[in-house]
Amino acid sequence: MSERDTIRRRRGRGGRERILAAATALFETHGINPTGMEQVAAAAPVSKRTLYTHFPTKDDLVVGYLEHLGESGRTLESVLDREDLPPRQRILALFTVPETDGPIRGCPFIDAAAEFPDPHSPVHAYSSEQKRRLADRLTELVSALGVAEPRPLGEQLAVLVDGAASRAMVLDDAGCGHHARAAAEALLDAALSARA
Amino acid sequence: MSERDTIRRRRGRGGRERILAAATALFETHGINPTGMEQVAAAAPVSKRTLYTHFPTKDDLVVGYLEHLGESGRTLESVLDREDLPPRQRILALFTVPETDGPIRGCPFIDAAAEFPDPHSPVHAYSSEQKRRLADRLTELVSALGVAEPRPLGEQLAVLVDGAASRAMVLDDAGCGHHARAAAEALLDAALSARA
Repeated sequence: MSERDTIRRRRGRGGRERILAAATALFETHGINPTGMEQVAAAAPVSKRTLYTHFPTKDDLVVGYLEHLGESGRTLESVLDREDLPPRQRILALFTVPETDGPIRGCPFIDAAAEFPDPHSPVHAYSSEQKRRLADRLTELVSALGVAEPRPLGEQLAVLVDGAASRAMVLDDAGCGHHARAAAEALLDAALSARA
Repeated sequence: MSERDTIRRRRGRGGRERILAAATALFETHGINPTGMEQVAAAAPVSKRTLYTHFPTKDDLVVGYLEHLGESGRTLESVLDREDLPPRQRILALFTVPETDGPIRGCPFIDAAAEFPDPHSPVHAYSSEQKRRLADRLTELVSALGVAEPRPLGEQLAVLVDGAASRAMVLDDAGCGHHARAAAEALLDAALSARA
């Protein structure tokens, strides 16, 4: 690769990253639908041509933003990848509502799905996939703990995780995480003592 | 009141109801932010002047829509008012995700708060009040059942109710309600057997 190609590629990558950073900030502050493509281009800053080269449609940009949150470990779910932590600790870490400078944010996938009510829209479908995956991963972890019927408990824990995120957002109160965690511990302990 | 006044008032009431019915249908199908005031006026149908007389701003219309949902018994929470049902039955009824013709809807208060991320915005603040009230009412019902420390359990049940609604919406799957209900029953039974 020539030096010029390297520079061009680096610039291109920088453009994509700047677009995603700007989109993330705008979506989180104002919501997705009120944020126009032009605002994202202006905030990045990139030309509209560059923006549309990376993300031909608003749907592409929103899915790109959600993918980027996951890939950069900025979702609550990313703690599930922490192979250094024992399963129970990884599960319970999901109930720590992240601190932010501004208002408490909910689960970005649920919030995005709420803004795109049609389940067949690319944004809603992507969010749904992520939330199904959360229950699958919780089921795996619960199974690793030795619970006999892991699927129902995995699904119940997913309800608690998403309920805590939704209530923390709407109430702007991280305390919801404590209540959800207490319920999760009670359900885990009951499932594990039933096994014994 | 003259006959003319009666007619005028009836017409006025009809206008407000038509506006709220149109807004509800549009907000639920497309989301709140993508729905403009002009669309609501056209769908009602009322003149823009009539629309703005009833709801001077979009915020007023959105809060009016949320209030109307509650007043007309169209929220899941309205089952809590069913004095004919015993407390436990009222609590568990919250986990029946309502059937709809179209995609499953989440909690309208959570969805609205997600679309208006600023906690100080009138829409977010109204939604927050409703969700705090849900936990308060669950705490009262749990207390009526004889649970010694009703507040933590009331809050935990609220997390399950809102988690089920959020997951049912994002996954377009009413099955989330069953998982949440099973968790709620386990927590209720544990709290009641601790009392015995």
